[in-house]
Amino acid sequence: MMDFRISSLSEVPALAASLPKADEAARKAALARQNSLTKPPGSLGRLEELAVFMAGWRATARPEIALAQAIVFAGNHGICAQGVNPYPQEVTAQMVANYRAGGASINQICAVTGAELDAVELDLDRPTADFTQGPAMTEAETLDAMNRGAAAVRADADVLILGEMGIGNSTIASAVAAALFGGPVAGWVGRGTGSDDAGVKRKIDAIERGLALHGGKDAMGILAALGGREQAAICGATLAARSRGIPVILDGFICTSAAAPLFGAAPALLDHCLVGHVSVEPGHRRLLDAMGKEPILNLGMRLGEGSGAALALGILRAALACHNGMATFGEAGVSDK
Amino acid sequence: MMDFRISSLSEVPALAASLPKADEAARKAALARQNSLTKPPGSLGRLEELAVFMAGWRATARPEIALAQAIVFAGNHGICAQGVNPYPQEVTAQMVANYRAGGASINQICAVTGAELDAVELDLDRPTADFTQGPAMTEAETLDAMNRGAAAVRADADVLILGEMGIGNSTIASAVAAALFGGPVAGWVGRGTGSDDAGVKRKIDAIERGLALHGGKDAMGILAALGGREQAAICGATLAARSRGIPVILDGFICTSAAAPLFGAAPALLDHCLVGHVSVEPGHRRLLDAMGKEPILNLGMRLGEGSGAALALGILRAALACHNGMATFGEAGVSDK
Repeated sequence: MMDFRISSLSEVPALAASLPKADEAARKAALARQNSLTKPPGSLGRLEELAVFMAGWRATARPEIALAQAIVFAGNHGICAQGVNPYPQEVTAQMVANYRAGGASINQICAVTGAELDAVELDLDRPTADFTQGPAMTEAETLDAMNRGAAAVRADADVLILGEMGIGNSTIASAVAAALFGGPVAGWVGRGTGSDDAGVKRKIDAIERGLALHGGKDAMGILAALGGREQAAICGATLAARSRGIPVILDGFICTSAAAPLFGAAPALLDHCLVGHVSVEPGHRRLLDAMGKEPILNLGMRLGEGSGAALALGILRAALACHNGMATFGEAGVSDK
Repeated sequence: MMDFRISSLSEVPALAASLPKADEAARKAALARQNSLTKPPGSLGRLEELAVFMAGWRATARPEIALAQAIVFAGNHGICAQGVNPYPQEVTAQMVANYRAGGASINQICAVTGAELDAVELDLDRPTADFTQGPAMTEAETLDAMNRGAAAVRADADVLILGEMGIGNSTIASAVAAALFGGPVAGWVGRGTGSDDAGVKRKIDAIERGLALHGGKDAMGILAALGGREQAAICGATLAARSRGIPVILDGFICTSAAAPLFGAAPALLDHCLVGHVSVEPGHRRLLDAMGKEPILNLGMRLGEGSGAALALGILRAALACHNGMATFGEAGVSDK
């Protein structure tokens, strides 16, 4: 299979027409199977929907997950010069080392739900530009990060879990969401990893200045002007997964906002994406509503690094176990009404 | 350890004072550990609460789950004579056979989340009495079912998942909830496994007649008059688990309503109980609100048989994996702010 690469940001919207779609025959076959299993029809709720969703994207009535790949993309951000985050930027690299050593939350959750974790750092010693002063990334930098994201996706994955780490990137997430979907900036801004009231004000102020400086851009132009490398990598990985019929589980506010420029370019580009959970960051529910996505879990989490998406993998596995392993009424000798 | 047995329904309220409570020192030690782990404090939300909850009931700062036991209790109900369910009562035994053969939803979910499943049938060939004609069970029958439920709990379980199966028992659940918590009967009644509008009307009518016949009883008297054997067994198992410091995960509407007489007897009797999910049966949210319980999952499920509770075990396992496996800031060399 040819590697998936993006050569210009302007080609992204048209990918909605050229990239694979869900297989309707497989979806229908999976739905018929669901209605034959030993349970009242519909009684497994979201689990039934997830099984049918997987059937469509994997193009088989009985989809299985042999390899679940989780990727945490890490980047650093010039916007930290505006005092938007209480932690030092060195924490980004320190947390990447923690992922490699197995000591982070995402390591433990991946072990429980059965995902293989890759941590991909993107030029941590070279933060993006401060978007209050100019575009965060050039088009070339944006494409490079997108293609590094795309290259990180394993061709044999059955599902892809995406997460991020980057000190300052809750400000990036709010800026991108505000630019894409509009409305008062304050409605897109929360406390991130631990900002106080003054920190939240600095975030809002920095974003308002960024929006004023970079108005009138299209969705992928917003990614370049206000986003960061891990955001671009998430877009690239999401598209590469789509090119291979690999469903994606997005994580919380920052991860969902990172993929949102694809939605802005063409909403169908995220049709293969689930959202693992809804974060307590107030912008996340707003973003999900704007994108028509219903999260799988709601557990008051706000950690990022793919933790909520990896947790939702356990629900997806249970959905497929029921779909593939349950007896039909006929097989079990159970009376249908 | 002595087996846990109940010898009269009137002794149940006083058990709140004599049965074990959560260990506060272990809770505090677990909370302190949570705040030292490589994440912003509180950012794992419900997972942090679950880890601290488990620490308290297991009386150790680092609780683990070696054995997760799931029990599905099955019973049959005289109320089916009132036409409250579209399925024949033989389905109860057929589904128990399905659990034993491994073909049901609960089997698949237990396999994914790592629970050992026991199916316990309670006199399926001898349904309880029709509560519109007289009490569903005598006190002796109620105690017998409670003690069989208690005896089914394995002393070495680290967590107990409870579920139920019984054609007609969504009517039982609504009747018990309405008797315990009051309000219009219609607010406690849903479609169960597949009632149409006329079926829902028959359920409401039967429950109203039952409530008129059995007014003025205390909580455990309500269990005997309107409940069933699997409901009584769930009460017995819940108390036996408490006697051994084993936390419980209750399932959906029917399972929560089955345990609710204990709450009515003394709310603290359910302090060791989590609720795995909120069902789409409309009475469940109402019941959880009345009992002050926040469900872990909300996935549009309404299957019973412990399916939502067993699914929530996966979240609990992830919570403990993070609690026990994550590095502290000091261990990982990550800068705290």
